[in-house]
Amino acid sequence: MKSTDKLKETTVSTKPVFTGKVISLQIDTVQLPDGALATREIVKHPGAVAVLALRNDRLLLVDQYRQAMGRCELEIPAGKLEKGEDPMEAAKRELQEETGYRCDKITHLHSFYTSPGFADEIIHLYWTDQLTAGEMALDEDEFIEVYEVTLEEAQQYIIEGRIADAKTIMAVYIWQQRLAKEAADREV
Amino acid sequence: MKSTDKLKETTVSTKPVFTGKVISLQIDTVQLPDGALATREIVKHPGAVAVLALRNDRLLLVDQYRQAMGRCELEIPAGKLEKGEDPMEAAKRELQEETGYRCDKITHLHSFYTSPGFADEIIHLYWTDQLTAGEMALDEDEFIEVYEVTLEEAQQYIIEGRIADAKTIMAVYIWQQRLAKEAADREV
Repeated sequence: MKSTDKLKETTVSTKPVFTGKVISLQIDTVQLPDGALATREIVKHPGAVAVLALRNDRLLLVDQYRQAMGRCELEIPAGKLEKGEDPMEAAKRELQEETGYRCDKITHLHSFYTSPGFADEIIHLYWTDQLTAGEMALDEDEFIEVYEVTLEEAQQYIIEGRIADAKTIMAVYIWQQRLAKEAADREV
Repeated sequence: MKSTDKLKETTVSTKPVFTGKVISLQIDTVQLPDGALATREIVKHPGAVAVLALRNDRLLLVDQYRQAMGRCELEIPAGKLEKGEDPMEAAKRELQEETGYRCDKITHLHSFYTSPGFADEIIHLYWTDQLTAGEMALDEDEFIEVYEVTLEEAQQYIIEGRIADAKTIMAVYIWQQRLAKEAADREV
């Protein structure tokens, strides 16, 4: 892999445009590798966590209305990081708040940017199959329903568009790969 | 799957905040299922395309500086939809502009939302291994380098964080699954 210094853009100035409850927006002026100037519209986000949680070989999904999409969608449990919060603790917290299930053991899978072209949002994705029953605790403006689905059902929901976001589709691929590996390990 | 009407939020008003080159921002006031009002910060995006493109069993990646992340990142070729543009044509166009490779045959894999909590960005993901050499045609503020990597290299870049965005990690999982299926089909 060659050095990428020659691709680097340098920030010349940052103009704040908006600060909201969840996101803020700024316009950065950058100097391009050839010396020219360009602007970049950047959404700042606190970061989020998501959990691939399995109970009796079924995936936990939450159904909720998404204003950006104008409809309900099935997603793996997820939520924003609180200020200064450890991502692993946030993952356990969001899982319990949204599904009622507590987990003691949870494993990090990936941390990924959702929209690197215009946003700094990063999602820390975890995996667990060690769940114990607890109580839900939704935010006051949060209305969701919890489902527990088989791999075949999850794949069908992707085809139907009921599952339609990147983190959840990625989680279903990861789950499928784990099941295939477990099956292969049993054959050996 | 039960009806999700009881989760529905109704838009009461929309306040435009910002209109930029790439994104716009609005604040929607919504009525929640319990009748209370809440606000949702929504980023509007024109939508995008991305391509899982294989040449001689190697994945095409583009290295570019991402101001939102403050560093360079390796991603599958991708770009925004032009107004009124067909996503499949956009995928072919972006692939050639960013990598120089043309493709006649390209297959739709998934269309997914990247950040349903605050943005309407949708990415249409395609797959092709039918590439012919052509010429790159980058935008004037676009500086990228093209790499062709093996599956093992791509997986290593994910571990190292050089590949760190949702669409590219998803593409690597899909590629891995296709290779596993091809290997299994050969054994039958």
